[in-house]
Parts: sequence; C-alpha cells; structure tokens
Amino acid sequence: DETEESKQEISPKEDAVETVSAEEKDPEVIGAHKNLNDAAVPLEMERKGSDVYIKMTSQITDIEIEKGYNYKAWTFNGEAPGPLVVVNEGDTIHFTLENLDPAIPHSMDFHAVHTAPDKGFADVMPNEEGTFTYQASKPGVFMYHCGTDPVLSHIANGMHGVIIVQPNDGYPTDDEVDREYAIIQNEWYRYNDLDDMTNGVPSQVVFSTKALDEGQPNTNGTVTAVKNEPLLAKVGDKVRLFVNNVGPNEVSSFHVVGTIFDDVYIDGNPANHMEGMQTVMLPASGGAVVEFTVKEEGVYPFVTHQFNHATKGAVGYIKVTAD
Amino acid sequence: DETEESKQEISPKEDAVETVSAEEKDPEVIGAHKNLNDAAVPLEMERKGSDVYIKMTSQITDIEIEKGYNYKAWTFNGEAPGPLVVVNEGDTIHFTLENLDPAIPHSMDFHAVHTAPDKGFADVMPNEEGTFTYQASKPGVFMYHCGTDPVLSHIANGMHGVIIVQPNDGYPTDDEVDREYAIIQNEWYRYNDLDDMTNGVPSQVVFSTKALDEGQPNTNGTVTAVKNEPLLAKVGDKVRLFVNNVGPNEVSSFHVVGTIFDDVYIDGNPANHMEGMQTVMLPASGGAVVEFTVKEEGVYPFVTHQFNHATKGAVGYIKVTAD
Amino acid sequence: DETEESKQEISPKEDAVETVSAEEKDPEVIGAHKNLNDAAVPLEMERKGSDVYIKMTSQITDIEIEKGYNYKAWTFNGEAPGPLVVVNEGDTIHFTLENLDPAIPHSMDFHAVHTAPDKGFADVMPNEEGTFTYQASKPGVFMYHCGTDPVLSHIANGMHGVIIVQPNDGYPTDDEVDREYAIIQNEWYRYNDLDDMTNGVPSQVVFSTKALDEGQPNTNGTVTAVKNEPLLAKVGDKVRLFVNNVGPNEVSSFHVVGTIFDDVYIDGNPANHMEGMQTVMLPASGGAVVEFTVKEEGVYPFVTHQFNHATKGAVGYIKVTAD
Ligand SMILES: [Cu+2]
Ligand SMILES: [Cu+2]
Ligand SMILES: [Cu+2]
Ligand SMILES: [Cu+2]
Ligand SMILES: [Cu+2]
Ligand SMILES: [Cu+2]
Ligand code: NA
Ligand code: NA
Ligand code: NA
Ligand code: NA
Ligand code: NA
Ligand code: NA
Ligand SMILES: [Zn+2]
Ligand SMILES: [Zn+2]
Ligand SMILES: [Zn+2]
Ligand SMILES: [Zn+2]
Ligand SMILES: [Zn+2]
Ligand SMILES: [Zn+2]
Ligand SMILES: [Zn+2]
Ligand SMILES: [Zn+2]
Ligand SMILES: [Zn+2]
Repeated sequence: DETEESKQEISPKEDAVETVSAEEKDPEVIGAHKNLNDAAVPLEMERKGSDVYIKMTSQITDIEIEKGYNYKAWTFNGEAPGPLVVVNEGDTIHFTLENLDPAIPHSMDFHAVHTAPDKGFADVMPNEEGTFTYQASKPGVFMYHCGTDPVLSHIANGMHGVIIVQPNDGYPTDDEVDREYAIIQNEWYRYNDLDDMTNGVPSQVVFSTKALDEGQPNTNGTVTAVKNEPLLAKVGDKVRLFVNNVGPNEVSSFHVVGTIFDDVYIDGNPANHMEGMQTVMLPASGGAVVEFTVKEEGVYPFVTHQFNHATKGAVGYIKVTAD
Repeated sequence: DETEESKQEISPKEDAVETVSAEEKDPEVIGAHKNLNDAAVPLEMERKGSDVYIKMTSQITDIEIEKGYNYKAWTFNGEAPGPLVVVNEGDTIHFTLENLDPAIPHSMDFHAVHTAPDKGFADVMPNEEGTFTYQASKPGVFMYHCGTDPVLSHIANGMHGVIIVQPNDGYPTDDEVDREYAIIQNEWYRYNDLDDMTNGVPSQVVFSTKALDEGQPNTNGTVTAVKNEPLLAKVGDKVRLFVNNVGPNEVSSFHVVGTIFDDVYIDGNPANHMEGMQTVMLPASGGAVVEFTVKEEGVYPFVTHQFNHATKGAVGYIKVTAD
Repeated sequence: DETEESKQEISPKEDAVETVSAEEKDPEVIGAHKNLNDAAVPLEMERKGSDVYIKMTSQITDIEIEKGYNYKAWTFNGEAPGPLVVVNEGDTIHFTLENLDPAIPHSMDFHAVHTAPDKGFADVMPNEEGTFTYQASKPGVFMYHCGTDPVLSHIANGMHGVIIVQPNDGYPTDDEVDREYAIIQNEWYRYNDLDDMTNGVPSQVVFSTKALDEGQPNTNGTVTAVKNEPLLAKVGDKVRLFVNNVGPNEVSSFHVVGTIFDDVYIDGNPANHMEGMQTVMLPASGGAVVEFTVKEEGVYPFVTHQFNHATKGAVGYIKVTAD
C-alpha cells in the first residue's frame, strides 16, 4: 500500500540509530560532570598466592588530548586508557570497582576472564562500590572496558585499558628479548557525542604507553604522548611490545618503521606464533605481542599504517642509542 | 594547459563512482518490486551419495529489520541472510536457482566451490531457472551471494548467506564440543540506494542465526533477532559457533562477552587453528569456527567489538542455564 | 571555569586535524607541479653477488586513473604504484633516490629492511639525490613508500609500491605453482587534498599488476588496468599471486571469485602458512602470497570483498584458457 511503500523511500538511519540507543550529546550527564575533575587515584593491587586483590575507581578526570584541549574523560583511576593491570595465568582476581562518578553507573568488563557478564560485569551505582571474583585462565594482552549502556559512550569517553595475563610457560622467545613496553591505541570523538561516535570519523587516533616496570613512562592517550617521551632502547636490542587496539570503532594496522617483526603472538597467546611480519592486523579490542630488533642508532616511529589515523595522531617514537 | 589543470581542481568522486556503475535509488527496479512480497519458499535439498541436489529461489520479500521498519529485500528463499546450506567436503553440488523476480536477473556465487564464474555463477533471467554443477572441495564456513551486476546492490539488498562444508576428518576439538550454532553478520543501508551503499555508513549492522538442527532458531538479520530469542547453553558447555561476516562493506571484530575463544579455525578450515583469542578478525566475506566455554549461569552477549556497529544493532545473546 | 567548560562543547575535530598537520589542497605545491608531467624513467638495478644497486626517481607524472581523468601523481619512476623491486633474502641494497621534483623533498621507506628511519629513510631535497644502504633480511611481500611529511599526502598522491624479498629456501609449495603474478591494491582521493585523504572516503580503489617476468603486463593503479589486460592462466594451473594492500587508509579483504586459496603465506613469509581460505585480510601495508587452482576455462575476477571498494574500481580479471 502507499503508506508502506513510501516508508521504503524514507531513510531509516536516524530512527534506526535511536532505536538501538544512540543519542546525541546528553545534556544531563554533561551538566552533572561539568564541575568534576578528580585527581587520579592510584590502582591498588595486592597478591596472596594466586589470589590477586585489585581495586580501581571510575571517575571523571580531564585528559589533555592535544595541547590546550582538555577532554573531560570518563576514566578508570583518572587515566585514559586506564592503568595497566598485570596478572599471571591461573590467577583468581578479586576486583573492586569504586564508582566516584556521582551521576551514572559504571562497570568493568575484563576480556581476560570467564564470568557471566550480567553478574561479573554488573553495573556499580554512583558513589557505590562493587566486588567481583573471576579467573584469568588464558595468557594474553587483553582489553578491559566499562560495559555500562550505552557501551560505546563509556568506551569512547575513555573507559578502556589493558590487562596482561603472563603465560605460565612464558613465550618461546623470552630469552632473546631485551626490553618490554606496553602500547595502546585508542580513538577520541567529539565530547560525549554518541552520534559522532556512531556515525562519524575519529577526531584523534592516539597511542599511549603504560609502565610495565618502575621508571618507564606511563601516559594517557594523546597525540604527542609517546613522541614527547619516546620509548628507549639500545642498538642490537630485541624489543617486545605488548599492544592492544581498544578502539572503540577502528581496526589497526600496527607497524614499526625501520624494522620487521621477528616474532608475533596474536592476542598475546604463545600458541599463535607468526614470523617476519611488516604489519599486524588488530581487530577492535585485539592484542598482540610483537618483537623486533633495532640495529642502528636513531628514532623509529610506530604507527597504524592506516595513515589517515596516523595523521590524526597515531604515531609514537622509539629512540635507540648506542650501548 | 588551463583546461587540464582545472580538471585537477574538480572532484572526480561523483563521476568516478558513476563510471564504475554506482547509481542512486533506481526508480525502475523500485517500481517493479513495489507490490511484491513473496512468501518464503523453503530450500530444497536432496542427497544421493556425494551428489547433493539443491534448489533455491531469488525473490522479493519484506524483512522487518527493526520493529515497524520493513525492508523490501532481494532475497534467497525469502530470508536475508538466505537459508543455511550444509554439505560435506568432496560433495558435488547440483544447484538450481529459480528466479521469481519478474524484473531483474540474479545469480549464485558460492565461495565454497571451484568453477568458472562466468559460467557457474551466470545470471538467471527473470522468471527463469538455471542449473549449475560444481564441487565443494575444501572444508569451511563460506559466504554465498548473488553476483549479478551491480553486485553491491544485490548483496546489500539482502542476497547473501552461508554454506558450511563439513571437514571429512572433522575438527580436532569435535569431542569437546557440546553445542553448535551458526551466526551471520550483515549490514543494511538505505533502501536500494547504491550511493549510500558505496559512500555511506551502514544504517544497521545485525546478527542472525540459522538453524543447524531442527528446533534451533532460524532468523533474518535484524537488530533484535538473536536478542529476543537467545542461543541456549548449559553451564560448563563448550559452545561452537560457525560465523561469517557477509558484509557487504565492513570487517568484523567478533567477540563473545564473558569468555575467551579456546579454539579458533580461521575460515573454518581445521588447518588454521589458533588458541586463546579474545576477538577474531573477520574480513568481509570471512568465516571462522570459534569455540568457548561458558562457566556460569547468565546472559553472554556477542558483538562485533567495532562498537559503532554494535550500537547499530550487532549484538546477540547466549543464555546459559544450570544443568 | 566557564571558558574551559565551553571548550568542551565546541568540536575539536577541525583544530585537531590541523594540529597534526593535515591541510587542505596546498596551492603552492599544486602550482609548482602544474606544468610537470615527466616521462617515466626506468628503474635501474644491478647485482654484484648479494649486493644490489637500485636507482629510482621521484617525479611528477600524470596517471590516467579513469578514462579521461588524469591525476598529476607524485610517483616513483613515473608509475603509481611504483616499479616492482625483487631481491633475495640476505641481499644488501644500495639504494639511490634521484629527486626530479623541483618543489618538495621525497624519500624512500622500504618495509623490507632494517635501518634507522631518520637516516636510512631520510629526505632527499628537490633536484638532489641520496644514497642509502641496508639489508633485506626477511622474505616477504613488502610495501615501500615515500616517508616525507605529510606522509599521507605522499602515499595517497601515488608514492607507494612493492618490494618482494624471495625466501632463500623458497615456499613449501614452489613445485606446485605454474604461474606467478604481482597485484597491488591502492586508493585514490581528491587531488592533493589532505582533508579528503584524512576524513573522506576514497574516490577510487584500484588494482594494478606489475611484471615479475618480461612479457607480463605492468600497469598503474587504475579502475580498468587489470580488466582491459587480464592476467592469463591455463586450465589446471595453480596460480600464485604476490599481493600487497598499500592503502593508504583502508584494509583489504582479498578474494578471487570461483576458487579458494589452497595455500596462503601471510606477509609472504613461508612460516606463516594457512590453508583453504576464501578471503585474506590484508591490513594497510600488509602483504600475502596466495595460491589457488583454476579448473575451468573462463574469467575469474579478483576483488576486495569490501564491496563498496570493488564498486569504486577494485576488480581485476584472470582469464583462463584450455591447454
Ligand atoms: Cu562507564
Ligand atoms: Cu569487550
Ligand atoms: Cu541478485
Ligand atoms: Cu564473493
Ligand atoms: Cu614523497
Ligand atoms: Cu610504512
Ligand atoms: Na569525530
Ligand atoms: Na639483544
Ligand atoms: Na546508511
Ligand atoms: Na562440556
Ligand atoms: Na574522496
Ligand atoms: Na598444475
Ligand atoms: Zn538524536
Ligand atoms: Zn627484524
Ligand atoms: Zn620465531
Ligand atoms: Zn548518481
Ligand atoms: Zn575459555
Ligand atoms: Zn586448542
Ligand atoms: Zn584546513
Ligand atoms: Zn582450490
Ligand atoms: Zn598447504
């Protein structure tokens, strides 16, 4: 009939997106957050045998994505990406989320664990805390993120990070490796604008590095973070990077200029070994361990070779000096 | 010279797209289809030894992508994605396409077979039928689709599906698996709008499930299909999903919340074994077998972790109950 | 404070992109290039043992991307993609770049080598030449490209190509292969428009083929290049393609219609063997060796199965004739 046919002619896009919960800038949440800028609260972590007790916060904290441009991020512990978590294969994680956000619930979804999501990744209400227990049974470089609806808003506003689960038997190439760093790729969109997050292109695509050991740099995801303070290595080193592309939307073509990956472990699992790769394909939320040798003094950039994203910020530096 | 230089200043994009056959909403085809809404015709399949006789239709049928929004899809057998086809490695397929569309030709391109495309995947004219013979010589989770020009219109309007070719020697993990389901990801664009299909972003990204066994759900690709009627499993089950991302345009970062893939077979070939993956990268038309264990009662969503697409509908549920 | 908060409301996107060096059409460079259309200068290559002496040019040359549409490309040697380079694993490359562009510097970044990028891939000034030495220590199908800032402009304007490093021990399937071809996928954007390159969608996505042996076709990346002059094979042949997706921005879902890849070597490394694949995921700058059998006479198209890109030109043909 006329009515039904004419519906075919009208674009469903806007309605469609609304139906599945996209919304534009949310004035209520923006208003509730506008005077917040909480200082970063350090991650708490304590081990008793293979039981690991981790406490994190969800909090609203400004992140300076570009010089002079502060993004009022939704964060874990005041960092975006959130703090690096490192545990061992087989550990039991006792995780507490303290939600310091007075306005909306948040939650934690660790890709490293087995749990029923509606229970183990449940929402924690504003000004409350929740504790959850689960096991990290597989080694790898896993994403974590807030899983509260609308998930895209929570991830894109900054609630993402990485948990490394160290393999009990190590990697076959452990003996060859001289230095290790952790690198994360993420995108930024217009502030709290779910329509831009859903239908737009990223405003910035960035790298951050998170300290694996004391003394290593630990940064947020900004357009200059790993340029201003490069990763360091010595001539002849085999460097290992733990990388994850936390998205929320784009895939990554991870590449280090001036070298080739001798060894790659897809998602960081020792069983998924590849060799001699110029570039590693990372799905959204995908990880890898990549290893490469730097043979001369100089500066080696790493990029996503999707160069529109490199142009938007996704470049970092490794500075190699003589022994 | 002046003329040639000025050509450089003018965008070639619109012309370029026209040249390679993109067009906007096609009023002739839309007009010819507008009163059609054929009831789904069941797939016919008969086996004689390793000869399999399959008959499918091409037909115009409304698919309710979202509540109240009907898309006048170009379909195989009135489903979009079309019916699941399951054969054995080494089978000879005798395939008949009955084209019930009075307006335009359609065809069938099975990724599972070896054939000369200009013969084996040839167009079948309106109101005619065509029969083709070829072999399914490799195991896997393969896409099929209409290959009639403009191919993007035929796929994006709904003419896609999956053919599983079962490996003669099975998968190494067959003994561990308790349940199997088939899952397909596809995108929808503005109705029959080749310009949106070519240059736009999807209106919806969706999952469907297709019955592998009697009693399993069998759905179209809609924003709620595998939410309203979740896949079922029991605590402790190892679940196997046969997945394919039929596109037409987007890649997929396939992930199940609350678990990790114990075993993955890329494109469904037993030789391509990976382990311990959080997320599997599926190219457009790529498949995989993924297996994971669900250890607690609850609801486990699966998504493409490209979260703009999840926001547009690409979420399904697995409901896990106690034994 | 009021000022800082209101900044949150203003889109950072345009500023952000500027900060990280995107700019719109650059009138100075366009002006300097507008009367240039240098004839292609052949690649020079000479071997002395495992020392290989390669000389290439950077030059401005029109490429007819579509019939009647000339793009004033920034090229290596007047081709876009540039000439195919083939060396052996372990070779030392002595590379000279002669920059025939009077306006801007160019450079060379071979993904096949180990070098400090700020030295080995350094800029060569207009009308100058530079010589660099490095080793090709890993086998594979590697991208090369200009690495001069802004890199996206230099790649997207045409400065990309492929270097194959042949494995010393060959591929396990060498004995089965009857024919070999090299195929490259690249995108084109609006002429020298870094904003379109950064935020737009490609105007054209194309394939080219580069001659591995004398007598084979050698084309630029145009919408008809590998259609007008198809690759040739005989019934029963196992065909090997060396493929690379040089981007600059998009990933590729490489597929040959009518067959299945018997064997795939990711990034062209013999260690990264996969089997029975319908489609291979290529990151931006990713390569592969893919092998397949053509069993019947006819025309077999190859595509990226991201069909919006196929619609924009990314289709080539393999013509198979009887013995
Ligand atoms: Cu949150
Ligand atoms: Cu997740
Ligand atoms: Cu069709
Ligand atoms: Cu296909
Ligand atoms: Cu250049
Ligand atoms: Cu590069
Ligand atoms: Na944006
Ligand atoms: Na070393
Ligand atoms: Na759309
Ligand atoms: Na079980
Ligand atoms: Na464009
Ligand atoms: Na042969
Ligand atoms: Zn809205
Ligand atoms: Zn190396
Ligand atoms: Zn190795
Ligand atoms: Zn038009
Ligand atoms: Zn598991
Ligand atoms: Zn296994
Ligand atoms: Zn500008
Ligand atoms: Zn085959
Ligand atoms: Zn093989």
